[in-house]
Amino acid sequence: MPWSRRFNIELIIRIIGILLIIEGIFLLTALPFSIYYGDQPFQWALFDGEHDFWPLLISALFTAGIGGLLYFIAGRNVKKNLGKREGYIIVSSAWIIISIFGAIPFLLTGAISNYTDAFFETISGFTTTGASILPDIESMPKGLLFWRSMTHWIGGMGIIVLSLAILPFLGIGGMQLFMAEVPGPSPDKLHPRITATAKRLWGIYVILTVVETGFLILGGMNLFDGLCHAFGTMATGGFSTRNTSIAEFSPYIQYVITIFMILAGTNFTLHYLALHGKLKDVWKNEEFKYYSFAILIATLIITLSLTFISNAHLEKAFRDSIFTVVSIITTTGFVTADYLIWPGVLWFFIFLLMFVGGSAGSTGGGIKVVRQLLLFKNSLLELKRLMHPHAVLPVRLNRRPVSQDIIFNILAFFLIYLIIFAIGTFVMSLMGLDFETAIGATAATIGNIGPGIGNVGPVDNYANIPVLGKWFLSFLMLLGRLELFTVLILFSPAFWKR
Amino acid sequence: MPWSRRFNIELIIRIIGILLIIEGIFLLTALPFSIYYGDQPFQWALFDGEHDFWPLLISALFTAGIGGLLYFIAGRNVKKNLGKREGYIIVSSAWIIISIFGAIPFLLTGAISNYTDAFFETISGFTTTGASILPDIESMPKGLLFWRSMTHWIGGMGIIVLSLAILPFLGIGGMQLFMAEVPGPSPDKLHPRITATAKRLWGIYVILTVVETGFLILGGMNLFDGLCHAFGTMATGGFSTRNTSIAEFSPYIQYVITIFMILAGTNFTLHYLALHGKLKDVWKNEEFKYYSFAILIATLIITLSLTFISNAHLEKAFRDSIFTVVSIITTTGFVTADYLIWPGVLWFFIFLLMFVGGSAGSTGGGIKVVRQLLLFKNSLLELKRLMHPHAVLPVRLNRRPVSQDIIFNILAFFLIYLIIFAIGTFVMSLMGLDFETAIGATAATIGNIGPGIGNVGPVDNYANIPVLGKWFLSFLMLLGRLELFTVLILFSPAFWKR
Repeated sequence: MPWSRRFNIELIIRIIGILLIIEGIFLLTALPFSIYYGDQPFQWALFDGEHDFWPLLISALFTAGIGGLLYFIAGRNVKKNLGKREGYIIVSSAWIIISIFGAIPFLLTGAISNYTDAFFETISGFTTTGASILPDIESMPKGLLFWRSMTHWIGGMGIIVLSLAILPFLGIGGMQLFMAEVPGPSPDKLHPRITATAKRLWGIYVILTVVETGFLILGGMNLFDGLCHAFGTMATGGFSTRNTSIAEFSPYIQYVITIFMILAGTNFTLHYLALHGKLKDVWKNEEFKYYSFAILIATLIITLSLTFISNAHLEKAFRDSIFTVVSIITTTGFVTADYLIWPGVLWFFIFLLMFVGGSAGSTGGGIKVVRQLLLFKNSLLELKRLMHPHAVLPVRLNRRPVSQDIIFNILAFFLIYLIIFAIGTFVMSLMGLDFETAIGATAATIGNIGPGIGNVGPVDNYANIPVLGKWFLSFLMLLGRLELFTVLILFSPAFWKR
Repeated sequence: MPWSRRFNIELIIRIIGILLIIEGIFLLTALPFSIYYGDQPFQWALFDGEHDFWPLLISALFTAGIGGLLYFIAGRNVKKNLGKREGYIIVSSAWIIISIFGAIPFLLTGAISNYTDAFFETISGFTTTGASILPDIESMPKGLLFWRSMTHWIGGMGIIVLSLAILPFLGIGGMQLFMAEVPGPSPDKLHPRITATAKRLWGIYVILTVVETGFLILGGMNLFDGLCHAFGTMATGGFSTRNTSIAEFSPYIQYVITIFMILAGTNFTLHYLALHGKLKDVWKNEEFKYYSFAILIATLIITLSLTFISNAHLEKAFRDSIFTVVSIITTTGFVTADYLIWPGVLWFFIFLLMFVGGSAGSTGGGIKVVRQLLLFKNSLLELKRLMHPHAVLPVRLNRRPVSQDIIFNILAFFLIYLIIFAIGTFVMSLMGLDFETAIGATAATIGNIGPGIGNVGPVDNYANIPVLGKWFLSFLMLLGRLELFTVLILFSPAFWKR
């Protein structure tokens, strides 16, 4: 059987085509900002680093055009049977392909002069990482910056909803794909009909974005900044429109963003429950408890340390602490304070927080709180099992026993995560980075955080990483965002065999 | 039921008593060297930092005396029923108590002026770690140095044999204890009768030590240096009698020690098979294959790098490479070259090797090769399991399927190891160590290696670690040496309940 017959290749092409058409449409949303902020709207200009109207329009038409072409190539009689294999291929290739096309405006405007950097910035957006290579963000044309933040928002949508909304729209049950997206414990089944569920979660995402934008505008931001930062927050992305990130804005805005980062890092099914008045169920959720508890304790530790050690003002210390803790735990990566100039122990503590990750079913990346929780519970039980080798002692989550297979998968996930972290650090060292920068860049990209430690800290960026390193880090962002297995499985020979 | 009735406390006291009597006898073996090297033998002198005859004799009599007292207190009618709980308590407390007493000669001679340092040096010996706080080893009296190396040898014996030889000698089946010692995959059952097996492994340990001493003496060492270094090698300890460790000696001696480190890091049951001519079985052993392969590849990488980058002499580059690789992988910690002055990538590579560890059933510490191998195999299988969720795909070792429970335990071990590593690094940072020193000291003590990176590198020592840090690192050495669970289980409330 030829290769193309083993997979439903037409369906893959068709879905990728549709995704590109959607990407083209999203690109158009940047045009109003380009026009509003352009000194000479509609002026024909490419590669001048200042005008972005035509670059954005051309990119939009080109992307949607290629998408339409693929849709056309796939043909009319596409079989709708979507297996696990197709699911894996679509998820991984979708993220790569929309990044390949999403990078075009950066090149056409001349804002970024080489494709490596443009791709890095774009996949950093779509994976909601927020690692940037732009040295002077504020000099960029506004339409382009809007697109940059939009990549976050699309990525975040992808993470929560794509697999549940786009595919059912095509008439395909996307459950396999959703499982590919979240190999960890799947969130509570909200609603028997997946399509409806997906639409509801998408609705929550949009509502939260709108509400946050409103609060930000109330605090003095204009619509452009408000939307861009709401995109960056709700996707747990981290791209800002300012060089100094959120340090630029008032304490009110910093608190608003803190609260919405916490919401973005929460399992979206809990928002759904909360909106339906089932607050009891939210509080009973163990992951949410642990997530809140982790934020609280870490904030307390850092606030007290900053107050005692640096004699900082208490409110400022608290604000910087909770903002940084939440930004790192939710894997957002917004910055209000340079944690690298805090005492050594504190930035190491921040570094450890990079391995927590948001909640499952949120837009947060990293290892995820629920995995930590289950592994912690399992480790305690393992000691009990040594004492009582014949007792059956399942790990329980929200009072229900979790199957051995899931724990096993989580342990393997954790292990592979750390192995990739170690290998990644080694590879980055090979490229000439110093030790701290190497571990910082690796932890911050595989965890989809953005700022790391060393020379990729909160007030630095990724511009000086060597070319090969940028491609490698791009790969790590993808790996981390797609929960490792989704990408790794494509490297397994068994995957490609019948 | 009162606490003392829940455990067979008399038996615990009796066994600890016997161990202290044996420790006292071993202390006496240092006296001949004290007499031979003492400028004024038998002279009454304490705390002068030069004479060690009376300090060693007093320590020996005191230790054996307390041991005798405990044996007497335990009484005549000790029930011989040894449960798992007693096993765990004996293993952990034995290592702590013999270290408490083993530290006395360091204090009485005045070689070390405070108990923290003396205890650190001693538990570093008994756990076969080899982390030292002595700034000038060569100025120490020779009898004391002999005792220092002897702590390694006793510790190594303990690791392989104690649980199989001492306890059966008392008429107790020590299998539970042996399982406590090696919660990982147990080595092939050599012989149905445990006592005989233990004695044979002990015989192999002694023979290898004697043979290595012979080879070292052939290379120009005197009996004292030969024995001390053979002790340090066979126990994978790492204490030397020289300030510059093995860099002091000829290439011949460096190669001899390399070979014997490799043997010490090999499962001792394989030595037994080899001695009985079953070389085929040795070569079929997967752990041994992987262990040899890891050494080979790492040596090749470092040799080539050193030759190309630093233009080093090929033989010298090869010798330094294989010595360092073997020293770190087997967790010995002898030094011929300062790997911290090698290019950054190489010392990071060395740092990663600290997480390999020797073979199970050897004197090597750390995570252990077989665990790595099983986890690696399981990770590959996990990808297959994602594709075929209903297939039963057991991990195989030496062609036999390994039970899910063992894999589970190994995953938990690995996870807890890394968590302790992270917490340890954090704690050491809290004590004011810089980042590299903190991770170096933590990795090198929990892995029972000795030299780390940063300020505890191969040409530095642990003298400048703060007092609390030394106690904490002592605890890490114990944790690592006793395979984590043996110690951690004592902190579990379930352990102390009926």
